[in-house]
Amino acid sequence: MSARPLRVVGRPLARIDAIEKVTGRARYVTDLVLPGMAHARVLRSPYAHARLARVETGRARALPGVVAVLAGADLTWCDPYFGPAFRDRPILAIDVARHEGEPVAAVAAVDEATAAAALELIDVDYEPLAAALTLEDALAPGAPLVHTREPLAGHFADLSSLRPRPGTNVCHQFHFARGDAATALASADLVVEDTFRFPAVQHYAMEPHAAVAAWDETGGLTVWASTQNPYSVRVELAKMFDVPLARIRIVVPHLGGGFGSKTYAKLEPLAAALAHAAGRPVRLAASAAEAFQTVRRCSARVTMRVGFGGDGTLAAVHCDAQYDVGAYADIGPRVVQKATYTATGPYRVPHVDLGGAAVYTNTTPGGAFRGFGVPQLAWALESLFDVAADRLGRDPIDLRRHNLLGHGEAFAPGDTPIDGKFEESLGRAAEAIGWTLAGAADRGRGLATMLKASIGPSVSEAIVRLHADGSVSVLASAVEMGQGTRTVLAQIAAEVLAVALARVVVVTPDTAITPYDQTTSSSRSTTMTGRAVQAAAEDVREQLLRVGSEALGLPASDLALEDGAIVTATRRLAYPEVLARRFGMAGGELIGRGVVAPGRSAAPLGGSTPFWEMAVGAAEVSVDEETGAVSVERYVSVADVGRAVNPLLLEGQDEGGVVQGLGHTLFEEMAYADGHLLNGTLLLYRVPRADDVPALECRFVENADGAGPFGAKGAGEGSLVPVSPAVANALARLTGVRLRDLPLTPERVWRALRARERRAPGAI
Amino acid sequence: MSARPLRVVGRPLARIDAIEKVTGRARYVTDLVLPGMAHARVLRSPYAHARLARVETGRARALPGVVAVLAGADLTWCDPYFGPAFRDRPILAIDVARHEGEPVAAVAAVDEATAAAALELIDVDYEPLAAALTLEDALAPGAPLVHTREPLAGHFADLSSLRPRPGTNVCHQFHFARGDAATALASADLVVEDTFRFPAVQHYAMEPHAAVAAWDETGGLTVWASTQNPYSVRVELAKMFDVPLARIRIVVPHLGGGFGSKTYAKLEPLAAALAHAAGRPVRLAASAAEAFQTVRRCSARVTMRVGFGGDGTLAAVHCDAQYDVGAYADIGPRVVQKATYTATGPYRVPHVDLGGAAVYTNTTPGGAFRGFGVPQLAWALESLFDVAADRLGRDPIDLRRHNLLGHGEAFAPGDTPIDGKFEESLGRAAEAIGWTLAGAADRGRGLATMLKASIGPSVSEAIVRLHADGSVSVLASAVEMGQGTRTVLAQIAAEVLAVALARVVVVTPDTAITPYDQTTSSSRSTTMTGRAVQAAAEDVREQLLRVGSEALGLPASDLALEDGAIVTATRRLAYPEVLARRFGMAGGELIGRGVVAPGRSAAPLGGSTPFWEMAVGAAEVSVDEETGAVSVERYVSVADVGRAVNPLLLEGQDEGGVVQGLGHTLFEEMAYADGHLLNGTLLLYRVPRADDVPALECRFVENADGAGPFGAKGAGEGSLVPVSPAVANALARLTGVRLRDLPLTPERVWRALRARERRAPGAI
Repeated sequence: MSARPLRVVGRPLARIDAIEKVTGRARYVTDLVLPGMAHARVLRSPYAHARLARVETGRARALPGVVAVLAGADLTWCDPYFGPAFRDRPILAIDVARHEGEPVAAVAAVDEATAAAALELIDVDYEPLAAALTLEDALAPGAPLVHTREPLAGHFADLSSLRPRPGTNVCHQFHFARGDAATALASADLVVEDTFRFPAVQHYAMEPHAAVAAWDETGGLTVWASTQNPYSVRVELAKMFDVPLARIRIVVPHLGGGFGSKTYAKLEPLAAALAHAAGRPVRLAASAAEAFQTVRRCSARVTMRVGFGGDGTLAAVHCDAQYDVGAYADIGPRVVQKATYTATGPYRVPHVDLGGAAVYTNTTPGGAFRGFGVPQLAWALESLFDVAADRLGRDPIDLRRHNLLGHGEAFAPGDTPIDGKFEESLGRAAEAIGWTLAGAADRGRGLATMLKASIGPSVSEAIVRLHADGSVSVLASAVEMGQGTRTVLAQIAAEVLAVALARVVVVTPDTAITPYDQTTSSSRSTTMTGRAVQAAAEDVREQLLRVGSEALGLPASDLALEDGAIVTATRRLAYPEVLARRFGMAGGELIGRGVVAPGRSAAPLGGSTPFWEMAVGAAEVSVDEETGAVSVERYVSVADVGRAVNPLLLEGQDEGGVVQGLGHTLFEEMAYADGHLLNGTLLLYRVPRADDVPALECRFVENADGAGPFGAKGAGEGSLVPVSPAVANALARLTGVRLRDLPLTPERVWRALRARERRAPGAI
Repeated sequence: MSARPLRVVGRPLARIDAIEKVTGRARYVTDLVLPGMAHARVLRSPYAHARLARVETGRARALPGVVAVLAGADLTWCDPYFGPAFRDRPILAIDVARHEGEPVAAVAAVDEATAAAALELIDVDYEPLAAALTLEDALAPGAPLVHTREPLAGHFADLSSLRPRPGTNVCHQFHFARGDAATALASADLVVEDTFRFPAVQHYAMEPHAAVAAWDETGGLTVWASTQNPYSVRVELAKMFDVPLARIRIVVPHLGGGFGSKTYAKLEPLAAALAHAAGRPVRLAASAAEAFQTVRRCSARVTMRVGFGGDGTLAAVHCDAQYDVGAYADIGPRVVQKATYTATGPYRVPHVDLGGAAVYTNTTPGGAFRGFGVPQLAWALESLFDVAADRLGRDPIDLRRHNLLGHGEAFAPGDTPIDGKFEESLGRAAEAIGWTLAGAADRGRGLATMLKASIGPSVSEAIVRLHADGSVSVLASAVEMGQGTRTVLAQIAAEVLAVALARVVVVTPDTAITPYDQTTSSSRSTTMTGRAVQAAAEDVREQLLRVGSEALGLPASDLALEDGAIVTATRRLAYPEVLARRFGMAGGELIGRGVVAPGRSAAPLGGSTPFWEMAVGAAEVSVDEETGAVSVERYVSVADVGRAVNPLLLEGQDEGGVVQGLGHTLFEEMAYADGHLLNGTLLLYRVPRADDVPALECRFVENADGAGPFGAKGAGEGSLVPVSPAVANALARLTGVRLRDLPLTPERVWRALRARERRAPGAI
């Protein structure tokens, strides 16, 4: 078959769900109405840590219109514990509440108002306990213990073997070493070292978590869920409620933003338990304030030592990172493991000694968040790179370029080789931001890089159906959460099968129907689900060509697909004719199957990514010296994506990543006092506004060298990661102050500027 | 792999949807509630034939609460004609109404009461036209023409080439000849000949037709429909509304009985048109009375001449059958073609001359009905067989046995060989009814046989998914309409994959999701869809064994599947372990694909069945000579099913077939006078009651010689076919009267008894 240019892939096409979204008709979980559906509300702990001496639900049960009331003690008929890493999180607090906002009891009633009224009738006697609210609290000798018993093993065998030891608040520890970092650091020409802090921030998805659960007569469970990974939710519910996987149906309509907050089970177990108790479908929809009590990004304290030779060659990195995973592990241990493993970023480092710990505290559980632990470490490493450049008298870009891993170079022995060209990204970012070392204007510019592994092993499967009229259905379980995955998957199928995009339909994920897909996260959907769809479409293509070859009496290699037909130089057999020949009638369909399961590589623990996510960011900032307010005037993001399947959607993704990165860089922090979250509402929590967004340029490096379809590879998280260090590096070059704690609030910057003046007036 | 005995297939297991059905929670189309859904009502013609001089809908449109009003003239934005054989049926009558009850206008409103009120405000000026109400009317010279223009081609190319000629009411003609029947009849030792009539009857499904239609923003259409063949409805809607097949979603929840009445589009086009006009979902649910106006069995007049040699050997059959297909062709032409082709039943006949015609009349359209035209012909042939036996002085069973086609014998050159043993069925039926020629009691006993082709070519596809815990999902599009197909498909998958039935889930048919299946009719689901499921499950089994073979270091032929595991004499690898090895993690699924498309054989036009349906029925009757009331005291049905996948369900099917056959044998007839249906309501239409059911015994011949899974083949229609001739033969043997017109009402029987007495008092 002759090669033909790409026609659908690579084009900036409007998303296929654009019209339903702009008309407001796109359906989200909370739009669902089921006959007889009850509405749930949750009673939450007002204490960061408290013993539940008594939870009395009798009065609530008696309220007319209430159909179910549950407290932790009622959950004797199921396994009430869940969690992907360790099953340490109860559906409802059992005996002890471990963070403010933890669900203590829940009500299902004929409407939300009745459910809310019933919550008022639940009497809980709390006995407040000493709380560990910060990493320092939690790691101090004699600290209050968040958990006193070893939790149950979770879904991941490798993590389960490293369960927390009782008696400390250390939830999980990870260590990765290569070479002899201590010796290398001792003999390095330059060692830069510092401790950096990264705040707890909220995902702030426009749609808070929601679930509608319904049991059927056969003991089957259907949950319409706002989840990024229906298959992970399915396996958790199967275990808790002892239901075969085939009888659990997780349906995911449109998702109003995920950013990691909707990975793994969140409200689904509670919704399912309430529906079971109520004997009818139950809708449980969190408020935005409740989202703050459900999951957040892990805050972190990172101490990093980086050694260089005199010529700027990286000698060694030592890292000691502590992540605050809050009251329950969620996927925090994996965040620590994956991020710590790549703490050295995109650089060649002969000696590494990387340690990471997940630490329990009595705060909202910390889980996955765009970047998956990498922003916390890149904040340290990329800041230290500029510090080192300054000490070595080197251009920061030049110093990075000197140490970058090359294309095809192994990140670690046995792990996936680097599948992109950092040099090219770096060059394009520098050029776009107008990087020079000469001009004074250049002083306000800074740059940072990032490297991130995706999840591994990584499995995606897909089915592609070619109908009798040549239109196409794609069955896959990647979740459309605004990133445009439905459009991208449709483009891939349309490209392989040479049909118009409008003739491809992507089915809504539903574990009863759409094939296994591990998760919609980790920037993996285009690469992994995309590959599965590509393979399934290719399977259909092979079937088409086989029939066409017989029909035309030509070898398949002489045939091409074009515009819904098998073509040769002189003949054209439209797909409906091909199918009619295949089936002997006007009916029947070709079914293609795609299974992508690269398996675990020979990488060390923590490794084995199917591809690398790579990006560079460059910022130009100004600062109001009177107030300390930092403004990001311009920002350039360059992502090495292999191939932009849809540049328009990809640009939207990367712009979103930059702006979200500006949030934790400049504004965002979940602020606690006396164990209480101070700003957990839409009103009080400050995210970037439209007028905070800089002049923003997103560029893509496309060398078709990715592991995904048509050479694509993952993107969407990368642009977020460099924002903080790029902005801080720019600020440092502009003002001479080096900040180590995020966000770069006016107060922090102002204090640093004042300190600088006291230290060395006028100096940079 | 060592053979193992069947464990799930062949067992009389309770249906898997039993609990949801007995608890009333099984969902049917009319249970569906969509937000914003409007409710439709239909204005129907009070005339059998009338010109629509004016249809004024302005006042109805103005009624508050009305969201759409449509008349035929409004349907300019779509192709308003549909029909599987010919597209001769408009969504709403255009210019002319061709039968009483034909939809003339329709209203969608906020509720049914408002819609009904709006119907009253529609003004229609009818100009009554002369009507052709019977076959005699329609075929008389100068008859009023039901259609005056050649209709558009339908879905089936072979029928479309034989469209009705304008200027007559002959809708379709079929002719099949072999040998020289005229000469053979002229030289036969005995020729029996007569004309038999079969009434128009209603399917009388507990659930009348219903559809809920909704359009989406992308121009896609979803219809929840009470249809036996969602894929046929899909292709009709695609053509009418110019939508790619992939964007049409036909979902079929439980169906409350089909019997052929729900094959091909019925209310779906109107529901879709109304939803389009209303800009919101529309629910259109017919009443039982409206079902009588939607479709019925084709009544028939059959003249048959059968010639025998002196030894009882069949020499020739000449058949001239006219089927009344009512006002629109529906699938009537196919009914005529398929039935006429097999008019000779299960007998070896060297010379045949078989003609069939479908004739338009101004009555409810006639379509598919259990037996698909065969009961009309078997009524004639099997009655004449007993007449011939009487004339030849032969035992009727013996005469049949003498002429039966043998196992493996071709029905017609190039067609499917006979795949069962009639001898065995005949013997078992005779034995069970206590057949002797000696005893006086035997006089009230009669017997009949049947042979029926299934639809061909015949395509079924299926997907089977094996989940990480070893539970199984079956994706197939066979419709559960009470016959138990979900259970049977689950049994097949459970058997192949060696898992418990409770761990298999069968997904609801939905053209967006579940693979192509031609139709749930023609007794084909167990055989064809079952084979597709079997093949898909075997595909999964192959994948399991491949992984197991690698894991255990043994050839796949040394491995067996047992109880959810791969086993050898000494080892056991449970499916979850197999999948974990395959995917390198606890996730992923094995996807199996099954495609069954046997294609068209070298059979003559009308032939090419994938299997034969074969049954024998025997009745014992009594008659009240004073009133003419016939009672069927005992009835034995023997079906040659190859293998009863679920004997319990099969027995239910066959019992239902016998009782439905008793309906048209003793009671049922759609009675017309002056162009009006007299008895088209639940109150007036007489179907068998519980106290009409005889002592009933259903037996199965199982030689595992069917084309379906584990040697099964189609059943479910067969038991109905012999009922009429078996009862009439018993009545003739008891009383000496031979009736030619069904039903055998007391009046008809009484008159025949009186005529006999006048003719030859006391004679038999």
